[in-house]
Amino acid sequence: MKIGICQIKVVQDKNKNIENAERMIREAALNGSHLVVLPEMFNCPYENKYFLPFAESYPGKTTNKLASLAKELGIYIVGGSIPEKDGDMVYNTSYIFDHHGEMIGRHRKIHLFDIDVLGGIRFKESDSLGYGEEMTVVDTLYGKIGVAICYDMRFPELMRLMALEGAKVIVVPAAFNMTTGPAHWDITLRARALDNQVYFIAASPSRDMDASYHAYGHSSIVNPWGEIISQADEKECIIYGEIDFKMIEKVRNELPLLKHRRTDLYTIRKG
Amino acid sequence: MKIGICQIKVVQDKNKNIENAERMIREAALNGSHLVVLPEMFNCPYENKYFLPFAESYPGKTTNKLASLAKELGIYIVGGSIPEKDGDMVYNTSYIFDHHGEMIGRHRKIHLFDIDVLGGIRFKESDSLGYGEEMTVVDTLYGKIGVAICYDMRFPELMRLMALEGAKVIVVPAAFNMTTGPAHWDITLRARALDNQVYFIAASPSRDMDASYHAYGHSSIVNPWGEIISQADEKECIIYGEIDFKMIEKVRNELPLLKHRRTDLYTIRKG
Repeated sequence: MKIGICQIKVVQDKNKNIENAERMIREAALNGSHLVVLPEMFNCPYENKYFLPFAESYPGKTTNKLASLAKELGIYIVGGSIPEKDGDMVYNTSYIFDHHGEMIGRHRKIHLFDIDVLGGIRFKESDSLGYGEEMTVVDTLYGKIGVAICYDMRFPELMRLMALEGAKVIVVPAAFNMTTGPAHWDITLRARALDNQVYFIAASPSRDMDASYHAYGHSSIVNPWGEIISQADEKECIIYGEIDFKMIEKVRNELPLLKHRRTDLYTIRKG
Repeated sequence: MKIGICQIKVVQDKNKNIENAERMIREAALNGSHLVVLPEMFNCPYENKYFLPFAESYPGKTTNKLASLAKELGIYIVGGSIPEKDGDMVYNTSYIFDHHGEMIGRHRKIHLFDIDVLGGIRFKESDSLGYGEEMTVVDTLYGKIGVAICYDMRFPELMRLMALEGAKVIVVPAAFNMTTGPAHWDITLRARALDNQVYFIAASPSRDMDASYHAYGHSSIVNPWGEIISQADEKECIIYGEIDFKMIEKVRNELPLLKHRRTDLYTIRKG
């Protein structure tokens, strides 16, 4: 399975963002991607004040476009995330489409990003967004894929549960910033892949120093040995990588971390 | 609290190893360490055939020496690990002594290291050792300290449970090798510290290319932001670092990962 990650430059015009995503998805498909991944909040600037005005209910303009592209191009799309309106609530939501254009999963960000680092980043996502209440693992032709959003990946419990649910690939649209990115991006991605013996796919927007939130970029594909096999810099681009399912089995045989868990001494479960 | 890690060169003579440890512990204490940490299997070559002949019951020659040094020098010692004989079984065991020379904790390695990497390392610890059955968190004058041994740190569940039990510092005597060390040592240490918002202390033997097992070295102290604040190379040496308990509180306030866990959606517990 070939993966393409579109590290989109997000602007303040929603239509422009959707057009931009379409252009990059088409290019990624043309280059042979079976699964195309978009970044967190790819149709909306990452700032609390934009979430409500940019939000749409499902099905809406953005999701219709993703569904039709998935069908036309015959590819899976993990549609990054967008602000989703549901009644009075807005969620940070990722929609997942199969190669027939069917929506096969929807992940609402479970852990909201409330941070206040002295001299660094301050952001309180829970001021404007509602909490997701479910873990998301979808079935595909290639096997099970777990989907989470950005801050969700900070929580090893959730990552472990997705692997135990059978995910061989974990896809995380994300937007780390210039405080957390240089400090934590690589080690978190690599440790999640290594600990859970999965491919870990993280998709960021490109960095825009004119925006109020400066995304780290560095969209990455990490293999189950914890090696970064493909990584972007901070600019708008598409990166590619192959998921080698045989490598997952090889690593799980050679260093059987999932098997060696002492489930008699500790328990982890949903709920 | 000042930490000293003795990255001991382990040889095939047990008495020599104990003398060597004593010399380095004295030096670390002289340089102001409140807690001195030794590496995994510091009195015995890391090879299955040596574990039984080098093993001792408690109290024994090695533990008596550590206890008397802790008392004389007025320091805490996490005594790396040694092969412990108990009836017919041998365990990979860490003894922890307080500044009065009292043994305040004993950790038997819970996860045994059975690995077989094509073209890399092959080692099957469970051929010669028994499994520990308990997590270890001890009380000290400085707060709670979790202790685990090497392969134990591969399991995020155990690390998380120690943090939830109140550990502010996790100490791990370890001996990664030249396959797993360059690939996994730094990211595992850093991710454990970062995810659990603790100081993470890992103590390795130095590398001896004449031994059958080539330890990676690189004993390290990592702060709760995931930064390596002190790291050895591969040679015999002592490294030092300060535990800043205020920094633990600062990081836990600014990026409240432990607080933001969705304990309504997932559960992790002992047993």
